[in-house]
Amino acid sequence: MKAEILCVGTEILLGDIVNTNAAYLARELASIGIPVYHQSVVGDNPGRLAAALQTAFGRGDLVVMTGGLGPTYDDLTKETLAEYFGSPLREDAKSLESIQAFFQKIGREMTENNRKQALMPEGAVIFHNYNGTAPGLALEKEGKTAILLPGPPREMELMYETGVRPYLERRSGQVLVSHTVHIFGMGESAVEQLLRPTISKMENPTVAPYAKTGEVQLRVTARAADKAAAEAMTQPAVEQIRQALGNVVYGVDIGSLQQAAVQALAARGLTAATAESCTGGLVSKRLTEVPGASAVFGFGACTYANEMKEKVLGVSPETLERCGAVSPETAAQMARGAARIAGADIGISTTGIAGPGGGTPEKPVGLVYVGVWSRRHEEVLRLDLGRGQMREREQIRYLAASHALHALWRTALLYPERTDG
Amino acid sequence: MKAEILCVGTEILLGDIVNTNAAYLARELASIGIPVYHQSVVGDNPGRLAAALQTAFGRGDLVVMTGGLGPTYDDLTKETLAEYFGSPLREDAKSLESIQAFFQKIGREMTENNRKQALMPEGAVIFHNYNGTAPGLALEKEGKTAILLPGPPREMELMYETGVRPYLERRSGQVLVSHTVHIFGMGESAVEQLLRPTISKMENPTVAPYAKTGEVQLRVTARAADKAAAEAMTQPAVEQIRQALGNVVYGVDIGSLQQAAVQALAARGLTAATAESCTGGLVSKRLTEVPGASAVFGFGACTYANEMKEKVLGVSPETLERCGAVSPETAAQMARGAARIAGADIGISTTGIAGPGGGTPEKPVGLVYVGVWSRRHEEVLRLDLGRGQMREREQIRYLAASHALHALWRTALLYPERTDG
Repeated sequence: MKAEILCVGTEILLGDIVNTNAAYLARELASIGIPVYHQSVVGDNPGRLAAALQTAFGRGDLVVMTGGLGPTYDDLTKETLAEYFGSPLREDAKSLESIQAFFQKIGREMTENNRKQALMPEGAVIFHNYNGTAPGLALEKEGKTAILLPGPPREMELMYETGVRPYLERRSGQVLVSHTVHIFGMGESAVEQLLRPTISKMENPTVAPYAKTGEVQLRVTARAADKAAAEAMTQPAVEQIRQALGNVVYGVDIGSLQQAAVQALAARGLTAATAESCTGGLVSKRLTEVPGASAVFGFGACTYANEMKEKVLGVSPETLERCGAVSPETAAQMARGAARIAGADIGISTTGIAGPGGGTPEKPVGLVYVGVWSRRHEEVLRLDLGRGQMREREQIRYLAASHALHALWRTALLYPERTDG
Repeated sequence: MKAEILCVGTEILLGDIVNTNAAYLARELASIGIPVYHQSVVGDNPGRLAAALQTAFGRGDLVVMTGGLGPTYDDLTKETLAEYFGSPLREDAKSLESIQAFFQKIGREMTENNRKQALMPEGAVIFHNYNGTAPGLALEKEGKTAILLPGPPREMELMYETGVRPYLERRSGQVLVSHTVHIFGMGESAVEQLLRPTISKMENPTVAPYAKTGEVQLRVTARAADKAAAEAMTQPAVEQIRQALGNVVYGVDIGSLQQAAVQALAARGLTAATAESCTGGLVSKRLTEVPGASAVFGFGACTYANEMKEKVLGVSPETLERCGAVSPETAAQMARGAARIAGADIGISTTGIAGPGGGTPEKPVGLVYVGVWSRRHEEVLRLDLGRGQMREREQIRYLAASHALHALWRTALLYPERTDG
């Protein structure tokens, strides 16, 4: 099967919004073995949309479309597609019911033009929209398949997961199971080199790397006749990766470093506190992204000024005078101070030079110290995040926060898990 | 002129990276009056790339391409384009010099395959790359123009600004000047309604709205024969918008709420301190995104636990007991406490329910109080960020932080500007 992605929307075409849908769909389709050869964007213009459909079906046999399913008169994707396939639109009773139920749920009045969203081309497979009103659909004719999804990413992604992916799997007679291995502290090429002799050559399961800022993810995907068989095939590969890479693997299907840290703390009944200088609150912001973080995190200090490092965290004036704010000594005292104030098991600190100004030959932009304090383990990491990279302020801050979160996670692992459930 | 954007790169095609280049270019081209009718993505495959070029030039006369200018064998965009235009590649001495100079600057050895990046099609206009090695180019033939830019956004965007935009302006014989008016606290449709009778009907300058999370930006663009004339045309429109909208306009060409706040504080010799609960450090993180924020910001407390609100900020236990952590009383005491500890002129606080859990009928998810303390002005804002919106945790936190930053900016304006320069 050769697939194309066709996104419809004047807002994307004019650059008012970034087309994250195309990236999501391309990655999802690739993960179930459907290669994408083209992505295109056209505006809400029936003529150009019809021409784009023609072009796409001239090159491939599956076209996945997003956008233009709204209730207003300029949302015409469904109408254009129905005409292209020669399938008249009929009101679908079940879809209408869902739309009415959605409005009831959010406590708003349904307007008459939302009725248009319940019109469906004859013969379509309909996908329910759990996060909005417009249903999606799949339409097949003479070996050509079109899939039509709503434009808002929250609606589109959930519909893909709950409706489209199972539909594509049913058609292929195979089920796919994926797991993502999360890696911090090793670059993509080093990861690939370590895995090359074994895992990366596999064909089922496949292992696909994705590089993120400071992180690498490996997606392990197996295909089989049923879910249990596919699941069983992924496990040895995940285990092999863990063994080959060691503790740079911070989790499987875990979401983020902050989630790994919060989970590790919670499983051990531990609490953490933060003391931030160059990251300015980013470490505590990321920790508190995790719902329920309050069980393990109660206090963070953003001590941007030296005076506050002294007054709030108890960093000694002599240390600040002799070693400077950006020093391993200050980082250590900040971490200890935060833990002391909060009565936390682990204290984590950051102090460094995020740039663009403030660098010197001895302490260049990108120099960051991460301090860790706990009863079991103390350490200060020296990071050189600027060298040869021309990184910008926000990248340096983000990476520094990632290192701090990773250090927090590592430190939590030194403690035993709770057995009281 | 009818334009298309054609992005080349297997990483975009497979969804490993999101195509922000297309959005940037679409918006920039629209702002200088060049409409974009299609965006496409193809992989690093010369056959499909040549076909895509053919398709694009069959529909329009300007194709702006990104990607595939790297030094490796699979980067073939330039080669494919040169062949399409029948222009042989020649080594360009000046480009080679720039590439060598770039490597010297970042202190790395230039490898032999980087020489390939200095090959240029005969007759091309060459654009210098200030952030990388691959030069860009424009090639014209028989009324068709191709512009080729590197894929990394940092390189592409700076090259567009410094090279491509002036090139397109030279060709059109007109210069464009744009200013962006930043608005917080009024929705896009309300803004449009207020401006409809006058400004939004203008043709030169034009006024284009862009909606961001919780913000609206209006881009005012004038075209004229020279820069001074275009500049003079934008000013009355910007002034009219300011007058029509009042103090929801927080700045012109200002970048962000946090930048407006930092500038307003600095201009008045004021300092601020933050006390955050539900935003978890996001307010201090955003303030410290601004280089030089240390002049106006020295301390932020992330007091996630009630105990820390008492111990660190001095919120009274009775208040917490009687009114709860999410209350106007607690917000007010948090703001005052942060200012007191830091000796700051203004204290800003947030306390609320970011969700997904923790909501009650009296205090639903999305309820946030923002506290402001200063000698001149105290206030507590009550925000209802969840109602009828199905907003997610991070959206609620981001909007709460935006309101806090806006309140900080507004409060700073109550003080006179410094006159000592």
